[in-house]
This record gives sequence, C-alpha cells and structure tokens, in this order.
Amino acid sequence: MLSWIDGRPAELLSVRDRGLAYGDGLFETIAVSGGRPALLERHLARLAEGCVRLQLPLEATSLRNELLAFSQQLGEGVAKLILTRGDGLRGYAPPQPAMTRRLLLGGPKPAYPSQHAEQGVHLFPCATRLAEQPLLAGLKHLNRLEQVLARGEWQDDEHAEGLMLDAAGRVIEGVFSNLFLFKDGTLLTADLSRCGVAGVMRAELLAQAATLGMACEVRDLDLAELLGADEVFMCNSLYGVWPVRRLRDRDWPVGPLTRKLQAIARDLLDC
Amino acid sequence: MLSWIDGRPAELLSVRDRGLAYGDGLFETIAVSGGRPALLERHLARLAEGCVRLQLPLEATSLRNELLAFSQQLGEGVAKLILTRGDGLRGYAPPQPAMTRRLLLGGPKPAYPSQHAEQGVHLFPCATRLAEQPLLAGLKHLNRLEQVLARGEWQDDEHAEGLMLDAAGRVIEGVFSNLFLFKDGTLLTADLSRCGVAGVMRAELLAQAATLGMACEVRDLDLAELLGADEVFMCNSLYGVWPVRRLRDRDWPVGPLTRKLQAIARDLLDC
Repeated sequence: MLSWIDGRPAELLSVRDRGLAYGDGLFETIAVSGGRPALLERHLARLAEGCVRLQLPLEATSLRNELLAFSQQLGEGVAKLILTRGDGLRGYAPPQPAMTRRLLLGGPKPAYPSQHAEQGVHLFPCATRLAEQPLLAGLKHLNRLEQVLARGEWQDDEHAEGLMLDAAGRVIEGVFSNLFLFKDGTLLTADLSRCGVAGVMRAELLAQAATLGMACEVRDLDLAELLGADEVFMCNSLYGVWPVRRLRDRDWPVGPLTRKLQAIARDLLDC
Repeated sequence: MLSWIDGRPAELLSVRDRGLAYGDGLFETIAVSGGRPALLERHLARLAEGCVRLQLPLEATSLRNELLAFSQQLGEGVAKLILTRGDGLRGYAPPQPAMTRRLLLGGPKPAYPSQHAEQGVHLFPCATRLAEQPLLAGLKHLNRLEQVLARGEWQDDEHAEGLMLDAAGRVIEGVFSNLFLFKDGTLLTADLSRCGVAGVMRAELLAQAATLGMACEVRDLDLAELLGADEVFMCNSLYGVWPVRRLRDRDWPVGPLTRKLQAIARDLLDC
C-alpha cells in the first residue's frame, strides 16, 4: 500500500519516533476521490490549530503540496496523514528545535454497508467515558486509547457506531464520528471544549446549515435532550452522514433535515 | 543503538502499527546493570495488569526471557520495552485475534546531575492538569501527551521535575516520577485510581516501608497537605529517590526518612 515518510516512499518508521513513544502527534483521515482530497482546507485548518496547541512546527504550504501529490497518486481511497514530533531521546521534553515528521498512508475507502446511509444506524451505548482535558479537547491527536476501549465494547454488526458521554454524563460524540440532533428545527451538536474530536465534517455541516438559514447551537447536551430529539445523525469526513435510528429502546425516523445535510455531505465527498 | 522487534534486531517499525496510530499499547523503562534488569518482577507485574486492562495478549514467560537476553546484551543502560497491538487496518476496533508486538530499545542511563540525589531538587509547578480516566489510571500506556505538555512548560535547569495535579487540584505525581511525603512519620502517596502512573519504584518503596514498620497511606492528597509535609521526595525506577527541596516558596530539608528510602532504592538499582 502507498505510504510516504517526509515525502518519500517508505513503509517503515524509526522505533524511536515520539508518535509511537507518547502519541506525540496529530492525524487526519482524508477521503480522496478522482485524485483530489475532500475538505482539504478544513483538514489543514484543524491540523494547523493542533500544531499551535502542541507546539509542533508546520510548513503548511509544503504539506498542502505533498497532500495534493499523494492524493493524485492514490487516485481513490483514504489518505491518512500523521504528524509526529520526530525521533526522541528518552524523556518527555520536546526536542529543541522540534522536527515534525510527516507520514502519509494510503488505503481503500472503508466498505460500509450502503444501508447505513440509506436506512440509518443503531448506536451502541458505550460505557467508556471521555475524560475532560481542555488542553487536548477538539484535536485529532494520537492519544486514542479511549476510542480503542470504546470500540472494543461491541463486536456485533447491529451497531454501526457507539455513543460516547463524558465523565459528567454529557453527550459528546461517536467513537469515530460527531453527533448532531435536530429539535424543533434547530441543529444542535456538543460543545467540544472539554473533550471530543472536532470533526471537519462537523465544522462543514455547521457552516452549511447556517448558510441555509438553519438555527444552529453548539453547547452542552445531556442524554434526555438526545432522547427528546426529533432527528439524530452521525457524521464524519469519510462516510458523510448516517441517520441514527435507534439508541437502546428509543427509535427515530430518518427525518427530512437529516436528508438535506446528508445530500450536502455526499456532494462534498464526491469532490 | 540496540533495538529488537519481536525478538530480532530491528530499527524500523511498520508505519501501520497501532502504537503509532492510537498509542494503543504499554511501555516500561527498566534500569539495566551488570546485564540484569532491575525490579524485573514489578515491571512484569505492571505490564501484565496493563495487558489485562487493555485486553492485549501477553506471553509472560517468553517476554521475561526476551528481557533477560536483551539486558544481558545491553550490559549497562536502560531497556525500554514497548508492547503494541500490532498492525491495524484503519479503524479503532481491536483486531481479532489481537497480535501483541514487542519492541525493546536500549539506551544509556540518563545523565542526571548527582546533586539531584545528594542535595535534592526543585519542583516546577505545572499548569497542565491530569484528566481523570479511571479506565487508564495507573497504567504506563502510550498516551502521554499530558506529560509532553507538562514537561514542555519549563526549559530551565533549576527545576529537575514538575508537580502535576489533577483537574480537581489533587496532588498526583511528577511528570516522570511518583511523589511521596512524610508527615509525622507516616509515608503518604497519592491514590492513582483516577489518573497517574503507578510506578514500580513507588510500589517497591511502599512495600519496603511497610516491612520497616513505617505507617503508609495511599489516599487523596491536596496541595495544603503537601506544603505541610515534613519531608517530600520523588522516585522512579531509573534514578531511585530525589529529595524535594523546594516548590514555589516552600523549602524542605532533606530528611532522615527520605535518606533511608533513598538508600534502599539505590541498592535496588545497583542490582
């Protein structure tokens, strides 16, 4: 499978990379169609914010060019971009000057059943809670053990995604998706300033919904509010939008507002 | 530098390793003297507990033999053992069956100034707080961005270690050490069931102190209790014990009980 390290074909990485040692880095998972990366500007913007917050040097222009060249070569699939703080000596102290290492890994698009998008999905209620860490909240960093534990909670095919709460019981997101709900015509999604990953599709749908004149709110949500929603859906930058049909014994129909945003997401990913 | 992957010399790792992708794994940092790993049983015990909690398969006997052979070859220095969940497809779901990958990295012993042990150290008061995640608390897992951020808070040589609190303000540990204090002859260290790394030297010193007839308590500690302590020290499995002399404007002497435990730690590491 296609993979580059610092712009050159390579399948192997130094065992002393700090991405391995500490999860000291960031990643993006980017849909590629017709040789072009979807939602490129949003992926680059999130990465730039992550680099500021982790104090990782970023050469944005050369990274963009590299991503474009990689996508061209990949053609169709998923480009996973990983930035790490490069090789480390022993110890947590960030090396000075820091060297950012770039990895690009190509793969096929995930083979999700088409029913997920068409008929909607059931959510598994994960027992794993997200810890509150405002310094890392929102970032797609390499410390993802909570997601590994949560995704390990179910093996059946009935549940396409899981619902994750924070330690205080707030509704935050899916294991690999963000969550939205509609209530009385207003689009709602969780505030991610304490935990969670601020997905690029989430950002894009919020922007598009506002453009369409929909009322949008980003704030704390509790389980009662989720269960009282008129429509619920999950989203990410690979599959677009999945309507949510069931959580435990609560059923939802696939609503018209969800379908509207799903069509927008589909257009964005068929770039 | 000496490094093995799954028992064979190798300096390079698959870019698709889940240790890199998600920090999906554990590590131990083991002092090696005269070809022998110090505190081996405690390192293996912590690793075994981590493997149970992360559901990583572990062949304990062959791992022990590999560590012994690696230490023999290393002679003097530090052996860093990393276990990861091996290569992943895309997605958080743990592969079934899981394959545990073993990495062993050799390096020199850290060159800490001898004054740290002899005269004691100053602690930097870290602003980075530890998030509460009971599912991961105590483990030495590969999700260590909090420590990277905390260690990045100071560059001066005045502070040899930092003090980390949890989000609620409890005193937990150092960035790469555990913290102990003595108050009225009782040895106290933080409860690590919400966050923190349960160090092998911490476990060993607790056991040895109990054998010596010292009263020991593992429980929540707040900053006032730390500041009111008679003696304070840090410990880990590489340097042993460092007396703490200062935190902000609070000064401590190097006390006799700290010296007693320091001597025990020194004996353990000169194995």
